[in-house]
Amino acid sequence: MNKLQELQQSLQQHEVDAAYISNFEDIQYFTGFGSDPIERVLALFVFPDDDPFLFAPALEVEDIQKSGWPYAVEGYLDHEHPFQKIADHLRSRHRALHHFAIEKDNLTVGRLQALQAEFPAATFEFDLTPLVEQLRLVKTSDELEKLRAAGQEADFAFQVGFETVRPGISEADVAAEIEYRLKKRGVMEMSFPTLIQAGSHASQPHGDTSARKIQENELVLFDLGTVHEGYISDASRTVAVGKPTKQQQAIHEVCLEAQLAAQAAVRPGITAAQLDQIARDVIIKAGYGEYFIHRLGHGVGMSEHEFPSIMEGNDLVLQENMCFSLEPGIYIPGVAGVRIEDCVRVTSAGCEPFTHTAKQLQTFG
Amino acid sequence: MNKLQELQQSLQQHEVDAAYISNFEDIQYFTGFGSDPIERVLALFVFPDDDPFLFAPALEVEDIQKSGWPYAVEGYLDHEHPFQKIADHLRSRHRALHHFAIEKDNLTVGRLQALQAEFPAATFEFDLTPLVEQLRLVKTSDELEKLRAAGQEADFAFQVGFETVRPGISEADVAAEIEYRLKKRGVMEMSFPTLIQAGSHASQPHGDTSARKIQENELVLFDLGTVHEGYISDASRTVAVGKPTKQQQAIHEVCLEAQLAAQAAVRPGITAAQLDQIARDVIIKAGYGEYFIHRLGHGVGMSEHEFPSIMEGNDLVLQENMCFSLEPGIYIPGVAGVRIEDCVRVTSAGCEPFTHTAKQLQTFG
Repeated sequence: MNKLQELQQSLQQHEVDAAYISNFEDIQYFTGFGSDPIERVLALFVFPDDDPFLFAPALEVEDIQKSGWPYAVEGYLDHEHPFQKIADHLRSRHRALHHFAIEKDNLTVGRLQALQAEFPAATFEFDLTPLVEQLRLVKTSDELEKLRAAGQEADFAFQVGFETVRPGISEADVAAEIEYRLKKRGVMEMSFPTLIQAGSHASQPHGDTSARKIQENELVLFDLGTVHEGYISDASRTVAVGKPTKQQQAIHEVCLEAQLAAQAAVRPGITAAQLDQIARDVIIKAGYGEYFIHRLGHGVGMSEHEFPSIMEGNDLVLQENMCFSLEPGIYIPGVAGVRIEDCVRVTSAGCEPFTHTAKQLQTFG
Repeated sequence: MNKLQELQQSLQQHEVDAAYISNFEDIQYFTGFGSDPIERVLALFVFPDDDPFLFAPALEVEDIQKSGWPYAVEGYLDHEHPFQKIADHLRSRHRALHHFAIEKDNLTVGRLQALQAEFPAATFEFDLTPLVEQLRLVKTSDELEKLRAAGQEADFAFQVGFETVRPGISEADVAAEIEYRLKKRGVMEMSFPTLIQAGSHASQPHGDTSARKIQENELVLFDLGTVHEGYISDASRTVAVGKPTKQQQAIHEVCLEAQLAAQAAVRPGITAAQLDQIARDVIIKAGYGEYFIHRLGHGVGMSEHEFPSIMEGNDLVLQENMCFSLEPGIYIPGVAGVRIEDCVRVTSAGCEPFTHTAKQLQTFG
């Protein structure tokens, strides 16, 4: 049974007449066709007992047909009213639509109201968000292959970065070199802008790559990832340029110990919150607890912002083939920042990381 | 009066007690602080008669304080419930909140319901989307400076691209070179992935840059842009590699004539739909109407997807300092694609383009 059929079965169980999938990543997940429509409307309608259809901007219709999508596609032009066309098409196929399901974490209030105006007697209460998150949580072997391939690209990116980093080069130039060499290799898309932060700049975990020049004896934090057939990699390493100070060595060592402790603890049956606590305890015990100011990790798949969230309060029990990052960090304001991150999948007895670049403190330049 | 004060005045007129701005671009517009929170909650609350406040992930609070935002910031941690914290803060400041305004084209159903659960007696009917769109439609002199600077970066990108393009090089390698040279220049962010499409590949207006090698005697379409302090450029040129055929010359000439006709017609008082028609008529008269399959243009500012949309059916009357693209295209399936695009601002008597790269058919390689 494929994922679309699993969804149809759930709709039947919940007596939903039509499901409106609006999140373009979820549409890619179910249809194989991926495209961010920005402000235009791309919608997948799924029914418990009938073929699904895609509704898309006219510009996309040919691409959808070529993508191998075997069901109907309805297109609309920029000046047409998308929800009128959707409603006309729905009414042409289905006599009775009483209960719609929607993705409450994605659908905007405006679009819900536009659809409600067409079907004033229907309910729109059933929330697809948790259902789809649950389906996407456990990866298929096809998804895992793509995550592994993306991980290999990230390892190549680190290699380029480590060859490039030296005193006097700017953070931006290191990022430029990495993305250039990846593009020359055919890797066209990063999963997010490559982050290179050196010295005290790395103590801002949400800062950007800047024109700041890397100095002798600084730590340099790399956080990067690529997109491989819609699936992403996301990994971090922190290296030294010149001779690291004792403090730099100490925080790198603690961060690495935390990362390895969490990685060693991953197995089916442990909870997300427990993993976070294992890494956090290492850092707290070493006296740096106040400098680890984010969760241990996030889910990974088509984006770096999916389930499961590896954090305090999340009692989700991990199962085989769930995939997520393990990324403890220590950020001492004005001094330095260290983060070490691999994304992994849960195996039957432990975990398999998608990136393999060495994690001990390496020195370059 | 600044834009935040204009918004407060509107709230007063419409008897709204609190406005919840959820679109992160709009938050940047009103506060000067820009950050895409992805799945976390970043919210700006504005009141008719009290100071606004920002609600943000804890990670962002320091950056917001440093950004010069003079009002309160409330942070929340990943495991806290954001809407409970928002509600507590709202209740601590305001006795009576009867009428909320929301951005219906941005706010998700889930977040609206989370807020409604905290304020079950309040209404959430007033839609801020058109109001904010209206405020953002006419650019300030500060915004125009940034749009001009972004345009200069796009002109530099074309120069690099034209130096690089030649028979045998792949589309991807041309894009890699452009983005590399921009990064070396300190331009860290493209407004979208640089699009390079050659030959028949360019006849898919929503295709991607690929590993396809550029051939002798093909047209090559460039569509690119940068981000300058939060404001973007977006421009297209189509050039020839080797000797263009008569058909290639003909469609380029028609597309350029359409682009120049629209550009010459821009002035306060004309409507968006009229501009679209002027360009479209040129292409229809030349016999290529069926190959111009998208609107003439889109608004430009902090993104390439804002108002005004330059298309059939949009009777918006253009005013001075509205900014948008003029980008007719002719896409002949399996043969070639041509698009020529500048973003412009409406001046008192005509328009000012933000990009200045030559538009006649140039030959390279």
